[in-house]
Amino acid sequence: MTLPRPSSISPFAYERDGAAIYRHSFAIIRAEADLARFRGIEEQVAVRIIHASGMVEVAADLAFTPDAAKIARQALQGGAPIFCDSQMVANGITRARLPAGNEILCTLGDPQVPDLAQKAGTTRSAAALELWRDRLGGSVVAIGNAPTALFRLLELVEEGVPPPAAVIGMPVGFVGAAESKEALLAAGHPPALVVRGRKGGSAMAVAALNALACERE
Amino acid sequence: MTLPRPSSISPFAYERDGAAIYRHSFAIIRAEADLARFRGIEEQVAVRIIHASGMVEVAADLAFTPDAAKIARQALQGGAPIFCDSQMVANGITRARLPAGNEILCTLGDPQVPDLAQKAGTTRSAAALELWRDRLGGSVVAIGNAPTALFRLLELVEEGVPPPAAVIGMPVGFVGAAESKEALLAAGHPPALVVRGRKGGSAMAVAALNALACERE
Repeated sequence: MTLPRPSSISPFAYERDGAAIYRHSFAIIRAEADLARFRGIEEQVAVRIIHASGMVEVAADLAFTPDAAKIARQALQGGAPIFCDSQMVANGITRARLPAGNEILCTLGDPQVPDLAQKAGTTRSAAALELWRDRLGGSVVAIGNAPTALFRLLELVEEGVPPPAAVIGMPVGFVGAAESKEALLAAGHPPALVVRGRKGGSAMAVAALNALACERE
Repeated sequence: MTLPRPSSISPFAYERDGAAIYRHSFAIIRAEADLARFRGIEEQVAVRIIHASGMVEVAADLAFTPDAAKIARQALQGGAPIFCDSQMVANGITRARLPAGNEILCTLGDPQVPDLAQKAGTTRSAAALELWRDRLGGSVVAIGNAPTALFRLLELVEEGVPPPAAVIGMPVGFVGAAESKEALLAAGHPPALVVRGRKGGSAMAVAALNALACERE
């Protein structure tokens, strides 16, 4: 005889404790991923990027210039503003993890941007950086969408605009993404962390920023 | 003799035309990805998910229940509201692509949610769905973060809450993500599109929704 199932019992067995889910996830990542070449903050960044993407293999694509992770954390602790190339990046950053109530800025939606883009003959994502000039020096930049934004950042620094303290360079896609990240690494400055190749995106950029912001997992 | 480089000439050669970047990206995707098993709207969804992730290989993980893509597009054209499990998903949807000015709802930040989560002994992501009950029927759901949100959705439907027209099931990660998506497919309803396995995330969920919303590429 089959008894009716009480409606209060879920037919789905799953972990409901958010803290346990985090702990278990991070344990799986550290068991499966090859993290041997990462130290300290770099390892935390790698774990969070893997966590956000569901891909342990992305560790192989992660590159840091010397001390970039440490420099970025120190800048955030010192109150550096965070410039983002997309609203998804800006919205994804966990405010409670920021060490100094850091300001998060995304200028993509500024009403000046469409005109700036048309006049400069470039994308809105790149043109939005014209509005970063005054406060770029010493900031932390998080690029998780547009290769053109990362190229434009490199141009601004080349032009002599005061550079950011560190750059999270994680644009995604098939046209210019890999090239923009190689150009950032080749420039040798500003300090940078990147996911090489086509992979990247707002979730990875947010994961990197959230890891840099706070030692606590 | 080396002439100084004029400051107006960028040392970086890259495509600056946004429309050309899209066209070129989509052409690369269609040349490289195995899209043979997708038709019509499904193919558009696959292309956009690949575009958002930089991974042609993710096509192999994409699954649709019969007519799910068509049903989701029709629901959106009919004005269905869009329920999202995270602010990143809600913020990523391109408003200009929505066919009926569809409302985008994310209840995760509602002040009732922490209490609801504690009382139910579950995550905030799952508890936030309690606030979807009244308008869930006929909606389109986009889950790009939390497996617990997708499991909770299946429980609500099992309890008899009017179901959504279609579900974009793309939670990401190492604990429950793959299982929640298999449970959605196994349930056989509501109509669903998923990225199987650990991969997923807000960018993929947004890409799927943006593809379903509008035929134009």
